Amino acid sequence: MEVLHDLVGYQNLKIYQNSDWFTFSLDSVLLSNFVTIQPRYRKILDLGTGNAPIPLILSTRTKASIVGVEIQNDIYDLAQKTIQYNHLDHQVQLLHCDMKDLKQMFSSDTFDVIVSNPPYFKYHSEHIVNENIHKTIARHEVMITLEELLRLTRYLLKNDGVFAMVHRTERMVEILDLFRKYGLEPKKIQFIYPKVGKDSDLFLIEGRKNGKLGLKILSPIYVHQEDGSYTDVILRQLERSDRYESEKLSDESK
Amino acid sequence: MEVLHDLVGYQNLKIYQNSDWFTFSLDSVLLSNFVTIQPRYRKILDLGTGNAPIPLILSTRTKASIVGVEIQNDIYDLAQKTIQYNHLDHQVQLLHCDMKDLKQMFSSDTFDVIVSNPPYFKYHSEHIVNENIHKTIARHEVMITLEELLRLTRYLLKNDGVFAMVHRTERMVEILDLFRKYGLEPKKIQFIYPKVGKDSDLFLIEGRKNGKLGLKILSPIYVHQEDGSYTDVILRQLERSDRYESEKLSDESK
Repeated sequence: MEVLHDLVGYQNLKIYQNSDWFTFSLDSVLLSNFVTIQPRYRKILDLGTGNAPIPLILSTRTKASIVGVEIQNDIYDLAQKTIQYNHLDHQVQLLHCDMKDLKQMFSSDTFDVIVSNPPYFKYHSEHIVNENIHKTIARHEVMITLEELLRLTRYLLKNDGVFAMVHRTERMVEILDLFRKYGLEPKKIQFIYPKVGKDSDLFLIEGRKNGKLGLKILSPIYVHQEDGSYTDVILRQLERSDRYESEKLSDESK
Repeated sequence: MEVLHDLVGYQNLKIYQNSDWFTFSLDSVLLSNFVTIQPRYRKILDLGTGNAPIPLILSTRTKASIVGVEIQNDIYDLAQKTIQYNHLDHQVQLLHCDMKDLKQMFSSDTFDVIVSNPPYFKYHSEHIVNENIHKTIARHEVMITLEELLRLTRYLLKNDGVFAMVHRTERMVEILDLFRKYGLEPKKIQFIYPKVGKDSDLFLIEGRKNGKLGLKILSPIYVHQEDGSYTDVILRQLERSDRYESEKLSDESK
């Protein structure tokens, strides 16, 4: 079912979702807040944008132009409606294509920042994957492998440009290998833990094209408290702007 | 000045220190508790044992024989006195030699477990290093580089044997590269943070020789509370046996 949701906490932004196929996840919110955005950046690319949560959130952090690429027609349509509803057409450009075609569409060294919340699982045609084709493509490396995505990123990113991604922690060693293979020097990592005392399931990573050696491991993020509710850190990311809005309101009422 | 210290919290173990040259650190305590020890293990090696804190703590976890190697004569003497004082001569054998010579002294595939708290800093002869030669050798890669240490480890470790190390977080990417280069598949990592909200400074890592892919990032360790005192997790590692002793005492007094 298609519905128009609040993008929780982000001012008046709303996002079109279809719960039968595709809803954006907390991972995209965390990634949008993790990636380094400098005022001088002019061009940002989101590889596999889904229903465009990352361009939406980034639009609150930067004036840079943002390109989002989505291969699935139905999801692309949701993203388009979302961008139009939020009057972001001037800043966010959505492309309905296979990201492998971007190499023909843009010159090398075009983007200051590339972000991606890519499929987390390798695809083996003999394995049973999600029967829903939309979810299968979003979760499994059907249309592009991680290595192809990093090769493309290296091509499209400016020298010293930023690449940030969220992925499964169990694939970290392979991911660090690939980052270095494609000259994306890992600069910061932040581990996400479902709760205190558990192993990390996801991590955020940022590299720089031809960057200098030197990695920081940031303070960890815990998602849930013991009772299953969100931690304050997560609530702050989700409700930042709500608080900002209500502060403005209470300022105005003085 | 040479003094006989309690090895805090470890039953009646005491350790000889010389505060002018060399005192063992919390890193060694954390590493000794981190490394996987299975009951079937028979032979353990500590590369660069210092005044032998790791063999001392491991002796409380296993009946396996433990070999410690130390190149510096004065520190080796402290370690010997420590092992004798604690009546651990039957379990812990100390070797006064360059660890590079171990390849002549032991066959390949000899040890079930190898641990090391190695020098943390690269050595550049033009840089100013610690003027105290004992500290310089303990902290800088003067006598052996990390790569040489891993090559040696690969040779001495049994197939599927465990290698565990503590090191600086900023060198993690290089370290993961070297682990894989020498067929020591990273299996678990635990980051150490000086306190909540800070970046990680140190990390514990364990690999297995020719092990299967699949890395776990364990729950993080925070060393200090806001007020600078140790956290409960650290106190538990330092005072485990004290508590055990006092529980035994209070049981007996019932």
